[in-house]
Amino acid sequence: MSGAQRTGADAEAGAGATVGGLGEFSLLARIAGRFAGAPSPYGPGDDAAVVATPDGRVVATTDLLAEDVHFRFAWSSPYDVGRKAATANLADVAAMGAVPTALLVGMALPAETPLATVDGIVDGIRDECAPLGARVVGGDVIAAADRVTLAVSALGDLQGRDPVTRRASEAGRLVVVGRLGWAAAGLALLRAGVEDARFAPLLEAHRRPQPPYRAGPALALAGALAMCDVSDGLLGDLRHLVESSDGGAEVDTALLPRDPLLDAAGAQLGIAVEDWLLSGGDDHALLAVLPPGTGFAGGCDIGWLRPGTRAGVRVLGWDTGGREGHAHFGGGPG
Amino acid sequence: MSGAQRTGADAEAGAGATVGGLGEFSLLARIAGRFAGAPSPYGPGDDAAVVATPDGRVVATTDLLAEDVHFRFAWSSPYDVGRKAATANLADVAAMGAVPTALLVGMALPAETPLATVDGIVDGIRDECAPLGARVVGGDVIAAADRVTLAVSALGDLQGRDPVTRRASEAGRLVVVGRLGWAAAGLALLRAGVEDARFAPLLEAHRRPQPPYRAGPALALAGALAMCDVSDGLLGDLRHLVESSDGGAEVDTALLPRDPLLDAAGAQLGIAVEDWLLSGGDDHALLAVLPPGTGFAGGCDIGWLRPGTRAGVRVLGWDTGGREGHAHFGGGPG
Repeated sequence: MSGAQRTGADAEAGAGATVGGLGEFSLLARIAGRFAGAPSPYGPGDDAAVVATPDGRVVATTDLLAEDVHFRFAWSSPYDVGRKAATANLADVAAMGAVPTALLVGMALPAETPLATVDGIVDGIRDECAPLGARVVGGDVIAAADRVTLAVSALGDLQGRDPVTRRASEAGRLVVVGRLGWAAAGLALLRAGVEDARFAPLLEAHRRPQPPYRAGPALALAGALAMCDVSDGLLGDLRHLVESSDGGAEVDTALLPRDPLLDAAGAQLGIAVEDWLLSGGDDHALLAVLPPGTGFAGGCDIGWLRPGTRAGVRVLGWDTGGREGHAHFGGGPG
Repeated sequence: MSGAQRTGADAEAGAGATVGGLGEFSLLARIAGRFAGAPSPYGPGDDAAVVATPDGRVVATTDLLAEDVHFRFAWSSPYDVGRKAATANLADVAAMGAVPTALLVGMALPAETPLATVDGIVDGIRDECAPLGARVVGGDVIAAADRVTLAVSALGDLQGRDPVTRRASEAGRLVVVGRLGWAAAGLALLRAGVEDARFAPLLEAHRRPQPPYRAGPALALAGALAMCDVSDGLLGDLRHLVESSDGGAEVDTALLPRDPLLDAAGAQLGIAVEDWLLSGGDDHALLAVLPPGTGFAGGCDIGWLRPGTRAGVRVLGWDTGGREGHAHFGGGPG
């Protein structure tokens, strides 16, 4: 899609223009034009894209994000929603120890969705990928839905390394890289209507998470025995590691990465910061099991995991109300 | 997911059970259990799947299908909807000359969706992939939507061949492999409430298209200069080939693959069969440009395409009402 064509598509759509006013092909052309950073010989625009996989394997994942479930336009700009939609997939790729290379983007849109909203989402997705060297290579759009629903798939390159799964075969230290509880605190502040400027970094963390993408391949290089991203809350995702490893784990609450801003927000809302740290999702921190004695710059030691013990999760220094075990918690959709 | 776990998930959900009654993880486990044909070391169940790409490249495509836009449960069983959702992607992969290897499946479901509906869709997707050697390696599900919306992404293997794009660099014969107009005739019969048993093959063609998947790689091997699948109707998709090639094409209506059953349905409904042949979508036939003198068993010669002439599309033997040119037609969403 050339710049000239993009201008043409824009000209069709003045201020106040909506998805319903544009045909499918015009809408696709408009979106492809905004995604086109580096031109590609194949896709968008053909039946399918062709993506290089020099490693001989490709990491692949998909996620759905729906308006009023995973985001609200009252609280997030379309641009932030786009970045967030890319984030969930890019973090999943990083959590396998891989580098993201390509995204496919499906959008189901109500007919009355303003084109400016679509543009914002598209730009957000593009800008979240670009610094990682990944780009959008294809997609689909339908103007039929009661809410904006985004279906993003991501591909990634293992660069010759083994994938790091959720299953640890040896005991190791539990290490967190990235933030815990920031996005949850931001969401709690928005829900309570508190938009105090001093909490701006927390609100920003909800609107635009900043996962430590590059730490994924780095943790793999450092010999990580298992890894996942923290999208359902630390305890929920730790449970996945523990169950996959038939193991036991211990987390010391006093060791969790804590910030004075979280404490201030907790005090303001009367919420225990530990709940955010242990159960808050959406920051997409990386949770890894590292061999004893292995250091990782920027990582925070929070406990240990031992496979094969079937001992479940034990939390020191905080009463989680029994939620640390194998019981199902942490949520249905919504 | 083991058989024992699947039984557990089934036990949770008796007759009449719905998506809303099950948590996200239980629903994902149930779906993963049904998809699990051949066990995989990675995914479903990890942050992402790992798919082999021995060719060093991967073909990737994504499509959205929404209830009451692309299918209706009044006319199609959940199982047929699942097969159809896989079909669109598998045909896109075949149209690049590639062999499908893996699918990612996202489902946005109303909370009141019966679990039996989900099971049917999942089984349909699985069974459409299996004969091709492809399988579902990952997915996501959310219980938030006003209609069942399926987001399927497919990956494919070029097996060392160049991808066959929509752009022809040399002139050649236009060849169709597969059916034209069958699905459109079936849909017209359903809309008119005609479910006469003699038209069963047409109704079936709408409910469960049968694209000539294996002809994709075979046409590539035969030296196809350009190719696409016919999902928007022959003229609509031919226009994509012609525009991508800055070319001209001629189609002779008398040469299109026609069937007495189509004629009978057209006579019954008072619809010209040519409209179905030229503009009916959803059969996912393959439309290829083959070098002059190249034969292809099972292919139907319908005309020619010449790149670089900017002559547009000319249809012989039928008045298309001017729709054969470069004007935008063939449909917005829905």
